[in-house]
Amino acid sequence: MKIKNHGQLADLGEFGFIAWLAKSLGQSLPQNITGIGDDCAVLPWKGDQKLLVTTDLLLDGVHFLKDKIAARDLGYKSLAVNLSDVAAMGGRPRWAFLSLALPAETEISWAEDFFSGWKSLSQKAEVKLLGGDTTRTTGAMVINVTLLGKAEEKYIKFRSGAKPGDIVAVTDQLGSSEGGLRLLLRSEFKNLCGQDEKFLLRHHFQPQPQLPEGFFLAHQPEVGAMMDVSDGLDSDLRRIMERSGCGAEVYLEKLPVAPALKRCCRKYGWNQEEVAAAGGEDYCLLITVRPGIFPALDRRFLRKFGRRFYPVGRITKKRGQLVYLKAGRPVTLQKSGFDHFRT
Amino acid sequence: MKIKNHGQLADLGEFGFIAWLAKSLGQSLPQNITGIGDDCAVLPWKGDQKLLVTTDLLLDGVHFLKDKIAARDLGYKSLAVNLSDVAAMGGRPRWAFLSLALPAETEISWAEDFFSGWKSLSQKAEVKLLGGDTTRTTGAMVINVTLLGKAEEKYIKFRSGAKPGDIVAVTDQLGSSEGGLRLLLRSEFKNLCGQDEKFLLRHHFQPQPQLPEGFFLAHQPEVGAMMDVSDGLDSDLRRIMERSGCGAEVYLEKLPVAPALKRCCRKYGWNQEEVAAAGGEDYCLLITVRPGIFPALDRRFLRKFGRRFYPVGRITKKRGQLVYLKAGRPVTLQKSGFDHFRT
Repeated sequence: MKIKNHGQLADLGEFGFIAWLAKSLGQSLPQNITGIGDDCAVLPWKGDQKLLVTTDLLLDGVHFLKDKIAARDLGYKSLAVNLSDVAAMGGRPRWAFLSLALPAETEISWAEDFFSGWKSLSQKAEVKLLGGDTTRTTGAMVINVTLLGKAEEKYIKFRSGAKPGDIVAVTDQLGSSEGGLRLLLRSEFKNLCGQDEKFLLRHHFQPQPQLPEGFFLAHQPEVGAMMDVSDGLDSDLRRIMERSGCGAEVYLEKLPVAPALKRCCRKYGWNQEEVAAAGGEDYCLLITVRPGIFPALDRRFLRKFGRRFYPVGRITKKRGQLVYLKAGRPVTLQKSGFDHFRT
Repeated sequence: MKIKNHGQLADLGEFGFIAWLAKSLGQSLPQNITGIGDDCAVLPWKGDQKLLVTTDLLLDGVHFLKDKIAARDLGYKSLAVNLSDVAAMGGRPRWAFLSLALPAETEISWAEDFFSGWKSLSQKAEVKLLGGDTTRTTGAMVINVTLLGKAEEKYIKFRSGAKPGDIVAVTDQLGSSEGGLRLLLRSEFKNLCGQDEKFLLRHHFQPQPQLPEGFFLAHQPEVGAMMDVSDGLDSDLRRIMERSGCGAEVYLEKLPVAPALKRCCRKYGWNQEEVAAAGGEDYCLLITVRPGIFPALDRRFLRKFGRRFYPVGRITKKRGQLVYLKAGRPVTLQKSGFDHFRT
């Protein structure tokens, strides 16, 4: 059971820790249950319907900065990141449970704003808040959301569905949220009021969980693996590689980037490819698609959603190898995705 | 929607905040769903089976003291307090989701111990860990557990089932955990090695969720309301009164207290009645029983579990009024149960 009996969690990193934990538990699960390792756990429910469960822990100072995010946006985003996990499996969200640790001196008006943001999204997504836990804290604010959803068994997509030859695609532009975060962390943040800056900040504060897109894509047999882009393409694609036992190559020129982000990259001296490939919290979907069918699926997606999705790479047989190509040549990225124990 | 638009959460208290929140959300739930306000939410599942969901947030410095609890006990207790919520509805626990925020410098051996404690209980309770979230923190350790269980619809007990005339009873002795906590907070804690002190500390660190008792009691039609004693009898009985629209009287002489706690109360100068009535975290069950049938049920319980349960009071018609009686006379308690925004 022991992998290591000394050292610190920082040595393992978040994904190492999860792998260590899954081994330590040594649980045998029945075939009809999917546990640790995907965007949601998948449990038996009524007949062909499966229950999806996901949970996300958000801490002030780690996942958000209370003084730099409006309460309304924080309430919205706490739910949005969980909706995105259900979208990534092709499910419909249903019921939420919210644990909140707030400083006792929190203003009631702050809580009102938080819940008005939550409600604006929960009503749209038809999600009911059915319980949770509240407590005071003398330290950092804590938000934990557990979301339950449903999906028909045959229309659930997993991270394990990628095959060599599949085209890797994303359903939206990348890096806008990371651009917003970088602006947020600048000391002169409050004076940044250009249209481009507003665009990036909006993407950071109000990500759009792609529920209709996820539901649509889950119903397409040509889609292999699916997950959401939460930790960044670099990190998330590695999860698909791991679960599918394959490798991937990514064409840096093809990473879709919003014009506003391009301009801000020039203005602030950011490396655009790094922002797009490693920036987290875009909450669009990352999919792999059987190659022959890609153009037809792209057209169906366009008809349905009025926009295309973006091919950015290819699944390879080289297990565990993620190669970035620029003008056909392998290059090395400066920064990899977000790892919650190491960053 | 607004109840108050200024002031702080501390002014509302935890229960006030939850009531405020439930009103703010203004959700209409279908009849087959129970949301905020009981030990678990109750959701549709297969046929007559219902899905129970509960979630608990535990913070270092608020709910536990990392330096004063063994990692193994903390792992055990994090699961135990959630199992107790499922026991309180009469359910069987099934699947757990664990969110953990740990300092990056946490030793791997600490995590091993935490999970060995978790596992010792999860195996016994046949609960599988199916997911969660892990993150580093620079602040206090955070543990959030969401537990799913199942129960047959007609054998679920709610807080709302009490009726005037019902006998109020608890399924175990009260105050031992509070006694353990009081010892823990003494500066000379490490030198307390008497048998009585060990007894109280064990009850504080290793509460026994009463799953078989809860399941048995849920199947008895004579049991009205049921919940677990987590915040203390005083606080928890008020929850039953609220949900059932009634009052209660409690006979202080009848509160069952372990001999070890009695001796420690004398030794350390604690008010025994206060410890028993207001101390939290006993995790036994609090029930109301139709009066005529009490002796028969008590005998059935004794046959099944080898111990009796304890009648401690009576449900009255006086809505919202909780009266403590000593030698037949009303008395006032010094301290009420634990409130997570005010304590």
